[in-house]
Amino acid sequence: MTVEVTTLANGMTVATESMPHLETATLGVWVGAGSRSEAAAEHGISHLLEHMAFKGTTTRSARRIAEEIEAVGGEINAATSVENTCYYARILADDLPLSVDILSDILTRSVFDPEELERECHVVLQEIGAADDAPEDLVFDMLQERAFHDQPIGRPILGTPETVASFRREHLTDYLDRHYLGSRAVVAAAGRVEHDAVVALVEERFAEFSTGTAPEEAFATWTGGEAREIRDLSEAQLTLGFEGRPYASPDHHAAQILATVLGGGMSSRLFQEIREKQGLCYSISAFHWGYRETGLFGIHAATGEGDLDRLMEGVAAEVARTIEAIDEAELGRAKAQLRAGLLMSLESPVSRASQIARQMLIWGRPLTTREILEKIEAVDREQVLRLAGEIFLGSEPTLAMVGPVGGAMGAEAFVERLARRG
Amino acid sequence: MTVEVTTLANGMTVATESMPHLETATLGVWVGAGSRSEAAAEHGISHLLEHMAFKGTTTRSARRIAEEIEAVGGEINAATSVENTCYYARILADDLPLSVDILSDILTRSVFDPEELERECHVVLQEIGAADDAPEDLVFDMLQERAFHDQPIGRPILGTPETVASFRREHLTDYLDRHYLGSRAVVAAAGRVEHDAVVALVEERFAEFSTGTAPEEAFATWTGGEAREIRDLSEAQLTLGFEGRPYASPDHHAAQILATVLGGGMSSRLFQEIREKQGLCYSISAFHWGYRETGLFGIHAATGEGDLDRLMEGVAAEVARTIEAIDEAELGRAKAQLRAGLLMSLESPVSRASQIARQMLIWGRPLTTREILEKIEAVDREQVLRLAGEIFLGSEPTLAMVGPVGGAMGAEAFVERLARRG
Repeated sequence: MTVEVTTLANGMTVATESMPHLETATLGVWVGAGSRSEAAAEHGISHLLEHMAFKGTTTRSARRIAEEIEAVGGEINAATSVENTCYYARILADDLPLSVDILSDILTRSVFDPEELERECHVVLQEIGAADDAPEDLVFDMLQERAFHDQPIGRPILGTPETVASFRREHLTDYLDRHYLGSRAVVAAAGRVEHDAVVALVEERFAEFSTGTAPEEAFATWTGGEAREIRDLSEAQLTLGFEGRPYASPDHHAAQILATVLGGGMSSRLFQEIREKQGLCYSISAFHWGYRETGLFGIHAATGEGDLDRLMEGVAAEVARTIEAIDEAELGRAKAQLRAGLLMSLESPVSRASQIARQMLIWGRPLTTREILEKIEAVDREQVLRLAGEIFLGSEPTLAMVGPVGGAMGAEAFVERLARRG
Repeated sequence: MTVEVTTLANGMTVATESMPHLETATLGVWVGAGSRSEAAAEHGISHLLEHMAFKGTTTRSARRIAEEIEAVGGEINAATSVENTCYYARILADDLPLSVDILSDILTRSVFDPEELERECHVVLQEIGAADDAPEDLVFDMLQERAFHDQPIGRPILGTPETVASFRREHLTDYLDRHYLGSRAVVAAAGRVEHDAVVALVEERFAEFSTGTAPEEAFATWTGGEAREIRDLSEAQLTLGFEGRPYASPDHHAAQILATVLGGGMSSRLFQEIREKQGLCYSISAFHWGYRETGLFGIHAATGEGDLDRLMEGVAAEVARTIEAIDEAELGRAKAQLRAGLLMSLESPVSRASQIARQMLIWGRPLTTREILEKIEAVDREQVLRLAGEIFLGSEPTLAMVGPVGGAMGAEAFVERLARRG
């Protein structure tokens, strides 16, 4: 597997991986701007812009965008995250030129018609409502908000009904001009693609993409704290967060391994102890999300009101135990899981294109599979144990809960349990 | 692409497709029994059995099952549906023998320890609670229940707290003996696999799998009707169902095309009219699920209380318009979407293994991609229009709603709208 990379005159990079045994391809544009790029008055604009990109260009109506890509059986989609926004198409390989044409159209020639904008704001309000109705998703927004309180990186990506309703055409074009820059945009493609052909297409169609320098973004500061919303639900949704590590940190892979050991699969400590041995929940897991200069190490679980205290005691005990000892067998399993997960993801053009794009945005170059595997392999027990101590004892935890959580222990009580055990 | 098939002495079939360019494989066992195979007192037992399969065998504890597969970076998973239950592993290709060994162990040598059973019942109760808290999922359970009222095929797969708490070891072994039979079990594998090697492994490890004849299952009868649950939510979740077609029906592909035209993508009628033109919702879609002797053609949307009536009027208008006319362009788009979706799914070992298994269970043989594409191609406008009339006017609709739906129009009023327009 070899990724070929070309940088265009406007600063955009094109990175492709040819998977010649496939019939299909994924091609997308990843822009290194997302919800954390927003000023306070812009809260939700990255996501609204992503929606509005599909609402008509100087040459295509919204309906024509949808009809053209679906007429060849393609799919076009987009997603906004904290640090990135992506627009991508899954197509049969022969339809690659059309996908580049449409993506360039929506990213450089969108009109943001005021009437369309008003309608789309209403659609996003419904999306906000649906997100609020889904406690299992909502609790993650609450976690992020509390972990990085009152900062762009902590704000829910969708925005609020008030901010979304306040946006006009000029807010969108202004945001677009400032943030959608060649220097922080990557076109990534994987599947049956030829690098030179993709470069030629992108060079022609994205000629108008802005050059310029991206504005500085505020440095995120971990705050920690507690967010609790009492709702009449069957299950309490619970998340617990600790300050994690940046994705480019030398501890990044150790943090992934730590999350895997603690709650990464059926053999993980939380799954075995809390679900299998104590039967206290259906879902429990741990994860690590890296950001540019910080990270979030989290635990998620859901359980009934009557089991909530025992579950939190159990989680505190497992977290404390992880600071004390990790054995070679579980370290080996965690590495094997990360290794196999990586190899499996290489086989899907969608996940491969997305991986390449993120590597380009983070490192400015694609990483080889071999170097990632070597980095995973190089992590040893001492590093994971040291990191566990730093993460679990070094930051004020964040506790976010929604559901029948009126009587649940608070963040301070949790820290006490942790200290007593640790 | 060629699928190789071998039938074993105990009636099991082994079907594999070699994808030699991959490093990984998916191998699983699909059993043609699911929630609709349950007697009333057994409601939820298929799903509980699927959970209990991971709780220990005569040779492996629950923990060892998890540790062994994850030690090689594999993933083992299972899912229960209305007509099938599957258990599958995603592994690096060299670990295929281990996956067969573990799957055969959990499917033929599970012990169903009473203490483990009690704990797992508690876990499933939490799963039921979480499902009840997720209105976007719950509304689909309500739809199925109302569409096939008071019948096994209509009952929620998870069971109820009461039935789940009532199951003992002998209920599980009895259900297993009656339903997990070689004659309705398929081992399917896709990825870097060799047919003969898989057959040899399965032959050896699944020697104890039961032979016998599957019991007759009740014929499902469409009832239709209305289910409405008022909850204090931001969005009303709405589903509408009509009697669909069996998966082996000559109208199966026409039904998929009809669902695609009506609500299968961004260019579909419902998306364009209700979301894009009127801005009434974030998500809206149509789908068709085939079952053995019946089917469910459904529409799902979510919207705020204030927009609910307009949304339902709009859906009635689009449904009525679909009975009257479908143009060649949208027929062509729907076919292209189904064609490309099929070709994309062929590239993933997980979806390929699952496709092959379902084909074996339905047709007793794998279908070639060519014959599926030809069947899709052969559908014409007349067939889709005829089918639209039959589906939308031929059965009593089912309406299921949850959220702020106290003032929403009922199924009868919806039918009136449809008739007035039609």
